[in-house]
Amino acid sequence: MSTTIDVSVRAEAIGSDPMAVVEEISGWLSTPAEEVDREFACELDRLRIAVSVMNSDAAAGDRRAHYCQQLLLARIYQLTMQIPEQPTAEGSVVVHEVMRLLEAATLAAEDDRIEPGILDQAPAQPKAYLSWLKGTARAHRVFKHPYYQDFIKDHATVDDLRNYVMQESVVDGRFDDLLAMMQVGTSGGAKMEIATNFWDEMGNGNQAEVHTHLFNKIFEVFEITSAELEAGLSANALLSGNLAVLLSRYRTFYAEAVGFLGMTEWLVPDRFVQVVKAWERLGLPDVGIVYHRLHITVDAQHAAGWFHNVVIPAASSPAMRRGMMRGALWRLNSSCRYLDERMPTTDR
Amino acid sequence: MSTTIDVSVRAEAIGSDPMAVVEEISGWLSTPAEEVDREFACELDRLRIAVSVMNSDAAAGDRRAHYCQQLLLARIYQLTMQIPEQPTAEGSVVVHEVMRLLEAATLAAEDDRIEPGILDQAPAQPKAYLSWLKGTARAHRVFKHPYYQDFIKDHATVDDLRNYVMQESVVDGRFDDLLAMMQVGTSGGAKMEIATNFWDEMGNGNQAEVHTHLFNKIFEVFEITSAELEAGLSANALLSGNLAVLLSRYRTFYAEAVGFLGMTEWLVPDRFVQVVKAWERLGLPDVGIVYHRLHITVDAQHAAGWFHNVVIPAASSPAMRRGMMRGALWRLNSSCRYLDERMPTTDR
Repeated sequence: MSTTIDVSVRAEAIGSDPMAVVEEISGWLSTPAEEVDREFACELDRLRIAVSVMNSDAAAGDRRAHYCQQLLLARIYQLTMQIPEQPTAEGSVVVHEVMRLLEAATLAAEDDRIEPGILDQAPAQPKAYLSWLKGTARAHRVFKHPYYQDFIKDHATVDDLRNYVMQESVVDGRFDDLLAMMQVGTSGGAKMEIATNFWDEMGNGNQAEVHTHLFNKIFEVFEITSAELEAGLSANALLSGNLAVLLSRYRTFYAEAVGFLGMTEWLVPDRFVQVVKAWERLGLPDVGIVYHRLHITVDAQHAAGWFHNVVIPAASSPAMRRGMMRGALWRLNSSCRYLDERMPTTDR
Repeated sequence: MSTTIDVSVRAEAIGSDPMAVVEEISGWLSTPAEEVDREFACELDRLRIAVSVMNSDAAAGDRRAHYCQQLLLARIYQLTMQIPEQPTAEGSVVVHEVMRLLEAATLAAEDDRIEPGILDQAPAQPKAYLSWLKGTARAHRVFKHPYYQDFIKDHATVDDLRNYVMQESVVDGRFDDLLAMMQVGTSGGAKMEIATNFWDEMGNGNQAEVHTHLFNKIFEVFEITSAELEAGLSANALLSGNLAVLLSRYRTFYAEAVGFLGMTEWLVPDRFVQVVKAWERLGLPDVGIVYHRLHITVDAQHAAGWFHNVVIPAASSPAMRRGMMRGALWRLNSSCRYLDERMPTTDR
């Protein structure tokens, strides 16, 4: 947070390859937090600039910088999403500051993509607000995206589907934990709705029907390893996972998380119908598609419950209306870029 | 994290009243994080010293410093446990660093109270480990503490009970959220056990039986307001709540959270039997005791399930064995100090 930075430090940082910055900071993540803060605090001025350069390059359209930005944020988030076997840098002040720079840039990039003025158009009456939110989503290019409606349904190969589930794992593979995190501090009907979704994800208490367990069956069908997984994720897949974690972990982003995760569940059924068609077309093992079949039904119910019990009661607050729409648009826009990128030939 | 600090800054900080430090930092918590980091980063050197002085005074036995330390940490934790109506300082780098200083001092104080060498005595065989852990707890002064066995059961007045539930609210009033947080990143049987506990806290989907809702009925019986609540909490009650949040929010403390929350649930039934006796003795409204009656049964089941499905499978790892016992001892010791303090005449 220093305001004066040595010119030579600045020059050195600007010259760094963003991947070198990612690897340098990643190297600390398996070091205990106190040690990181003792040993590497002296590196903070340089890193603050290096990460800021990465962020501004990403904002200017540099794809490598964007990838590095999201990869580093995803690795930092793993500290808060996985139980480690050894002490980690979780909680480190140095890592926290780097993370905050990455988060601020990630959110600013999403806000820049929201059409100016749209958040001010939200109707004040809760039911009218919900109709408007759904109408905006239905009119969005992502709503019936050709990636699902055409490519996945009719053309995707086994390898395409394999790649598809890898990219989806950043949200689907830990949806239960995202729900658990985002419900902290809620009460009443909203808490019960989110808790019910969580319990459904837990197979309503039946170990064999836990959704993340079913999702992992697909990984077994395709023999995907965790090492392969990280290396195979695109910048926009990493971004989808990072946005979901970011919004779920901060109480100040509760409204945005409601919009983001609600939209995620609402878009699922129609998408997964196409995935099931592809699975059947390719004759893949039935055990691997249970998860998708289940979510065609369950997510339609979840989205309806979410809208009725979480969105509508919250929509009496202007700040909540604005936040929920902001989160919904972050999901629609980021999902659209992600699907565009995954098309074999794009119209971008 | 600067290593050189101006002498006059140090002198100024040492002279500060700890409550003035608490109020200064508390004043920022309702300011957006980016603004706090922009405006108050320049205060960080001074505050780092002021908080360190507060921490060392607390460690040396200064009760006021200890109270201030735990009050400030509790207020910072509220940012991560409550959904705000306005933007807050949640995530602020400055606040994060202050929080880390408070957390480190809080944990060091608990570790100092663990008998040297005890963690090395843990048997390696999982079932023997569990017996040893329970045996250590049974031999602990807190196990049949006279606060419950004598004072609550036979002597407590309505006002004593009223004060009792206020102090307990820091854990009981948000046990569902603590479980939701501490299960992030788990899988298999451990995840299911914690999720089942969470779902029980949610009344298994029945709004009227949500445990935090039932707990709040007691608050209604006693007409306790949230303003009165914070002012009424003792340092050791604040500490109990802070330890529970601290251990639940970090993945690196998963083992400690298992020990801490498992011990919390295991101690409940025998304690609540005494609370129910007091309630009946005083002829208080029945609606306010449903929560305690329920937990006499349900927490006995939870503790058994927790030991069997979370502790025993984890106990094959030496690091987990050590962490779980550490967390269990933190609970036993901190609960004992808290109960000692609450006795009308103490034998300290």
